[in-house]
Amino acid sequence: MLADNVPAWAPEGTRQARADLSRLIEPGDLLGSITVSVLGAERTLHLIRSGQKPSASDQQNVGEAAESSGLTPRQRKLSEALARWRTRLAQIGDTQMLRSLGRQGGGLLIPEDAAWPRQLGDLGAAQPIGLWFRLSGSDDHDPYASVSGHLPRSGRSVAVVGSREMTDYGGHVAWETARELAGYSVTVISGGAYGIDAAAHRGTLAGAQRGHRPAIAVLAGGVDRLYPAGNEGLFKDVLRHGIVLSEMAPGSAPTRHRFLQRNRIIAALSAAVVVVEARWRSGALSTAHHAMDIGRPVGAVPGSVLSASSAGCHRLLRHTPAHVVTDAADVMELVAAEGPHIGAQAPEVIESSQRHAPVEDFFSALDGLDEAARRIYDALPVRRVTTPGRLSEIAGLPIPQIFAGLSRLERTRLVRRSQGGWGRAAPSRDIGS
Amino acid sequence: MLADNVPAWAPEGTRQARADLSRLIEPGDLLGSITVSVLGAERTLHLIRSGQKPSASDQQNVGEAAESSGLTPRQRKLSEALARWRTRLAQIGDTQMLRSLGRQGGGLLIPEDAAWPRQLGDLGAAQPIGLWFRLSGSDDHDPYASVSGHLPRSGRSVAVVGSREMTDYGGHVAWETARELAGYSVTVISGGAYGIDAAAHRGTLAGAQRGHRPAIAVLAGGVDRLYPAGNEGLFKDVLRHGIVLSEMAPGSAPTRHRFLQRNRIIAALSAAVVVVEARWRSGALSTAHHAMDIGRPVGAVPGSVLSASSAGCHRLLRHTPAHVVTDAADVMELVAAEGPHIGAQAPEVIESSQRHAPVEDFFSALDGLDEAARRIYDALPVRRVTTPGRLSEIAGLPIPQIFAGLSRLERTRLVRRSQGGWGRAAPSRDIGS
Repeated sequence: MLADNVPAWAPEGTRQARADLSRLIEPGDLLGSITVSVLGAERTLHLIRSGQKPSASDQQNVGEAAESSGLTPRQRKLSEALARWRTRLAQIGDTQMLRSLGRQGGGLLIPEDAAWPRQLGDLGAAQPIGLWFRLSGSDDHDPYASVSGHLPRSGRSVAVVGSREMTDYGGHVAWETARELAGYSVTVISGGAYGIDAAAHRGTLAGAQRGHRPAIAVLAGGVDRLYPAGNEGLFKDVLRHGIVLSEMAPGSAPTRHRFLQRNRIIAALSAAVVVVEARWRSGALSTAHHAMDIGRPVGAVPGSVLSASSAGCHRLLRHTPAHVVTDAADVMELVAAEGPHIGAQAPEVIESSQRHAPVEDFFSALDGLDEAARRIYDALPVRRVTTPGRLSEIAGLPIPQIFAGLSRLERTRLVRRSQGGWGRAAPSRDIGS
Repeated sequence: MLADNVPAWAPEGTRQARADLSRLIEPGDLLGSITVSVLGAERTLHLIRSGQKPSASDQQNVGEAAESSGLTPRQRKLSEALARWRTRLAQIGDTQMLRSLGRQGGGLLIPEDAAWPRQLGDLGAAQPIGLWFRLSGSDDHDPYASVSGHLPRSGRSVAVVGSREMTDYGGHVAWETARELAGYSVTVISGGAYGIDAAAHRGTLAGAQRGHRPAIAVLAGGVDRLYPAGNEGLFKDVLRHGIVLSEMAPGSAPTRHRFLQRNRIIAALSAAVVVVEARWRSGALSTAHHAMDIGRPVGAVPGSVLSASSAGCHRLLRHTPAHVVTDAADVMELVAAEGPHIGAQAPEVIESSQRHAPVEDFFSALDGLDEAARRIYDALPVRRVTTPGRLSEIAGLPIPQIFAGLSRLERTRLVRRSQGGWGRAAPSRDIGS
């Protein structure tokens, strides 16, 4: 097995190089991760730091990989990219960064680590250079020793996201759905923002089982700045019962560009993305869009057509392959039907799939009756009784069929005999629509 | 042209025979309409009335037609069917029925009439034997002369249906959607029931244009008994501005079986069916089911996942090809995309299709900017100004690109120059989600 031949942790030099690169190269700068994967982290960092021109063969190798990833000729120019990456060189003097983050219970996961979440590979060239993490740490605690237990398991993680401007309805549904998902031992991923994100994190924490670390917040800025500050208490709880992740190096500020890039990581870490509330133009829709791009199923919670906070969800449902989800059981169906690897371990999924009978049973209330029996039942008076002869005329069936039908109906206790006639056993509450 | 060779109205003998047959043969008794179409209405009625055994060739012809319509051997037995149909013979003595209904502004349309709604043919063997109608009549008025103008035009009629137990939300959406559909010159078809049906009829009447007859109520009982009686005022308005239809002969009571059968007629007369609110088990779902069976598009209005009155709509959206509709414009898109014959005559459909931009424009607020410009914009302070050198470091771009980007941003008025530095022209309200 491959896992036996791969050391659990990458060499520290590689980790330090990727730490520096994650500060120099902006997320979404696709030539960055392509160059790192072709030349290696150390050589890429050396080229940036030294100011050397890349060799012809380096340029050619990187250019070919970039071309096969679909980058335009302009985007493929390595020398231009190196100039771009050099602009932030002044920021990477601090070789203590990794060590000091370690004392806070944090660190940097890189693709060379055995613990690296392989789902991120679905992003292709957009795979992040590294994933900074932060746990609830203490001085005598090695964060790398426990990080694996906090990472999202493939096929067992769901993103619950939405707008910051939420309604009470959206907040309730996000909280309740996340709480129930945690009860299914699912890890719930969100973005730590106000509104739906915060409600989802809180619900997850409320539903956590003993020993289960269900909460993951993926930030757009560094894991040392828990943004927004107003969610400080929530982040403390997430750190205590889960993990905070970011591709941005410590100290980095969140920007609109980084929020949108961050959303691709939320999508890639999840087996499904659920949008609870979103306005017509909402960043949460970009998470859904990223998820569809890499083949993750997307669910959207419907709401009032009069609510602007549900307009983005309805937009997804009308114009994309997103699915209606109404509760956590629907989300589990979505994961079971389309998410990878999940069906086998999850008996509760099977149960929830059976919860919804197929659409064909519209008439199930009448299914037990054949057509003749149904017509006889319809012809029976509700409060009085009547004769088989009169039933024959009303139902349009010959007398022998009336008697046969009445005896079938009597066995199902739908009719009663009384005063020498026949009537319904219970009043009809509802005669159709 | 065929229309020139076909008399506008069928012979009165045929009409009288179908009037009688519509009283003898229960809706959904498929061998009935098959027998009528094979042997003709008069001959079928004669066989029932006379008590004669059908000839071997009659039996064979009817049996073959029934077999090709998928009826089981038991369902195909003509002699059994004749016995069934004879049970109500006592009810058809009244040859004055058609004439007295005529004085009330009513009559019977039959497939032999040029005005017969051809859409009903999509029901195959389940096509009704006739369609009783009632208009707002007066003594000097020939209802047949004006009935054509009240019938649903193919591709220009929409069913708006739902549960009787509606919420304020459902009532509002049904009323508003129907009102706007009437504004698009669409005929709105519903079932005259309490709740969503009544709200849809009322909205239609509120939105009717001068000279447009937009309201159709299809009943499960006779058109002379406007059921439910509590909607009497509404029915009067529908009769004044539209038409009431039923396959059941005058005097017939509505039964659960007939409500469910009636729903197939609503579906067949419509270019699309919209379910506004429906509980998990609701008769309105049967209308949607019938519509799908004959290839009509179905829309469902989403609502709160916490509302039992929307559970049936969400069920349709989860388990069938039903589409999310949020307003009348969405319904028009549904009709234009999938309904027959409608696109050409309907300029407002094109307009409404363009109303929703495609889902790909998630980032349209940023679309005008290339990636470099976006990173520069992100790096600009909101309330202060900064230098190009500082921007270079924050955005991770070389100085020449910073200057080029700033001048592009300045042209789009997104940035401002002030006190020798650069800042955003307007505060960022929203930095992602």
